[in-house]
Amino acid sequence: MRIFDIITKKKHGCALTDAEIEYMVDGFVQNDIADYQMAAMLMAIWFKGMNDHELFVLTQAMARSGDMIDLSAITGKKVDKHSTGGVGDKTTLVIAPIVAACGGKVAKMSGRGLGHTGGTIDKLESIPKMRTSLQQAEFFSIVNKIGLAVIGQTGNLAPADKKIYALRDVTATVDSIPLIASSIMSKKLAAGSDCILLDVKTGSGAFMKTLDESIQLAQKMVAIGEQAGRKTLALITDMDIPLGAAVGNSLEVIEAINTLQGNGPKDLTNICLQLAANMLYLLDKGSMPECLAMAQKTIEDGSAFTKFAAMVEAQGGDTAFVYDTSKFARARYCKRILADADGFISKMNAEKCGIASVMLGAGREVKDASIDFSAGIMIRKKYGEAVRKGDILAELFTSEEKRLEEAALVYKTAIIISKTKPVQIPLVFARVEKDKVEKF
Amino acid sequence: MRIFDIITKKKHGCALTDAEIEYMVDGFVQNDIADYQMAAMLMAIWFKGMNDHELFVLTQAMARSGDMIDLSAITGKKVDKHSTGGVGDKTTLVIAPIVAACGGKVAKMSGRGLGHTGGTIDKLESIPKMRTSLQQAEFFSIVNKIGLAVIGQTGNLAPADKKIYALRDVTATVDSIPLIASSIMSKKLAAGSDCILLDVKTGSGAFMKTLDESIQLAQKMVAIGEQAGRKTLALITDMDIPLGAAVGNSLEVIEAINTLQGNGPKDLTNICLQLAANMLYLLDKGSMPECLAMAQKTIEDGSAFTKFAAMVEAQGGDTAFVYDTSKFARARYCKRILADADGFISKMNAEKCGIASVMLGAGREVKDASIDFSAGIMIRKKYGEAVRKGDILAELFTSEEKRLEEAALVYKTAIIISKTKPVQIPLVFARVEKDKVEKF
Repeated sequence: MRIFDIITKKKHGCALTDAEIEYMVDGFVQNDIADYQMAAMLMAIWFKGMNDHELFVLTQAMARSGDMIDLSAITGKKVDKHSTGGVGDKTTLVIAPIVAACGGKVAKMSGRGLGHTGGTIDKLESIPKMRTSLQQAEFFSIVNKIGLAVIGQTGNLAPADKKIYALRDVTATVDSIPLIASSIMSKKLAAGSDCILLDVKTGSGAFMKTLDESIQLAQKMVAIGEQAGRKTLALITDMDIPLGAAVGNSLEVIEAINTLQGNGPKDLTNICLQLAANMLYLLDKGSMPECLAMAQKTIEDGSAFTKFAAMVEAQGGDTAFVYDTSKFARARYCKRILADADGFISKMNAEKCGIASVMLGAGREVKDASIDFSAGIMIRKKYGEAVRKGDILAELFTSEEKRLEEAALVYKTAIIISKTKPVQIPLVFARVEKDKVEKF
Repeated sequence: MRIFDIITKKKHGCALTDAEIEYMVDGFVQNDIADYQMAAMLMAIWFKGMNDHELFVLTQAMARSGDMIDLSAITGKKVDKHSTGGVGDKTTLVIAPIVAACGGKVAKMSGRGLGHTGGTIDKLESIPKMRTSLQQAEFFSIVNKIGLAVIGQTGNLAPADKKIYALRDVTATVDSIPLIASSIMSKKLAAGSDCILLDVKTGSGAFMKTLDESIQLAQKMVAIGEQAGRKTLALITDMDIPLGAAVGNSLEVIEAINTLQGNGPKDLTNICLQLAANMLYLLDKGSMPECLAMAQKTIEDGSAFTKFAAMVEAQGGDTAFVYDTSKFARARYCKRILADADGFISKMNAEKCGIASVMLGAGREVKDASIDFSAGIMIRKKYGEAVRKGDILAELFTSEEKRLEEAALVYKTAIIISKTKPVQIPLVFARVEKDKVEKF
């Protein structure tokens, strides 16, 4: 077998055999296939795509290039959730406790922020003493005991994906639906859960800018998951505007806690209930309306909040901060962004909001940079709201005063105030199950 | 400027700017652009192509990456000829003398054989003492004096092409019309002639397997040449069957000499007259019928043969071999291929004939391998001819007896004998000038 012939086949739009795909992935990981050959291959895939079977085989080969985590030591069905990344997306902090409060098991490995989107692990680490790096035995034992734990990626998960992603990043082949699908799903398959809920973000703050593309990506990922024997389902959710009001690490943790206590922003609360209900549905807890009611009840009766506090305690975090969020350090500097006209907020570019937040110190511009946990943005006027000239649109927080001006300029360009009230955007656009797409 | 953005543009089918193309070529030659990025770019070009202006700028940048040979020391207009390569293609040895005999200047740099096609320089070196590597001053002086010289590539011609070709060769991006056109034309522009005749081979023995593709390639190359201020014209000629009867180095030299003396095979004689007439046309020697008559006359009056002998003498070769071709060493071993049925030769796969010849020792399977000058094939029955069982189809020659059997097997698979006489294939399918395609 020669990679040359495999590139030739793909370039002409032919489907590759299982053996060819496995040869390609293994050869690349073992450095038998040169970067330049893989680069040509990735560009050919960018143009010609892959069918569902090819994609499944590719994803399996990528998953199997490293550790395949065995969660069988955790009793019951495990459900995982993946978000394609968004601005202000703190949903994991809310929905994992809801699902655990309903008896589900969530053994979640999350990522750190890079670029304009935040990462769950960075957010959790804004709780003093919180440990996000646990040995497998302790991780399993916590999930067995309280139903959930959220830690950073452990072990050598899908090294083929890391190597392929690094190459895609420099060869303009990131924006390929099959390559995105295999990248995400290889890690999910390796992470070992029985059920997978995918939250595919669409809009200006997301990778996928249109609904059609987002549905295509969701369908590809659901097909991979189902072929691998995992119950998989995807929601296409809005990321044209940031989720909730808080953008930034401790600000988002506080907002998540408020939401668990029933005092969260309406959009965030709703989306979290939807996501959690779908995870419960995957766990066969009932029909969708039943699952939604169950999720709602855990907020009303405080059981979801209790699960969150239990998780923080189990992972060594200082629960005093959970019970009294005023203990979180406040950023030293604050700048208010004021409306310069009367009207309605008719546009909020989520990507730009995310960039402004990173500029304030809440994210990383380069890998391994340190984070200012208290930095970020509190959005005071959201999409669709009426404003008067001089109203506070947002407050920017940072520990370094010099960061305020530039971030404020970027935030202002993210917002458009117009005379007429804009149309309402749904939170969830579509739900994708195996062989079934529901649009809302 | 970033190569990432340039790849992205091309991938989406946008035309690149002159500055982007120059940045890409220069950066790649200087190792500022990685192989894997160039590989992704080449695959994007494979899919999206290039418009005529982009292609001209690319070709110029590739030509200018090395020496641009200045032929102004040679008086008069210089005409160059390029063949995309074929089996038994010894036309240069015939047409350069014809053109010189008519007063044209041919300062020709030729290549060596690789793969299943032969190279003019290897053929010339089968003449004892022939020097094919000359200093520029001597090269120019010979052309000034006698009108022609044929030498190996000198100087650092189009190093960008060498580097890009090496990458195309391992990334399955060789078969791209714009990349083939820029590769050929970058060397032709660097070689410095005023006029360029392109002999684009089509058929089983050629790179381009169909007439449409061949015409497209010709049009792209003519457009490049004309934009660069060189008068350029292309003929699309047959390479479905080998040219003439001889395949192999000294065998082809002998056949070329016979042709110059008016005793060549009909197909070879005709194609040489056509090519030479078109070169004379490029040099403004007259109308096409006039140019054809001029060319014919140089065979009839012996002036073309005299030019060939003068060139051999000027380049140090032993002219005794030219005047008496029986002096050429004969290969030690010969095997006759006999017809196994009555009928007509209805197929002669030129590529397989070329491969058989290489197996006999006439070519190189790897770069820098040595060559058996007397090895090769004399075809005794060509396409369209009637044969009876037991007739000699071909004679195979080699210095190593063990090579005969395998080569004979390959040659046999190249030939098909059928009951009915096959249709006649024209030698020249089309002629491509600027903005004009004539099909015959």
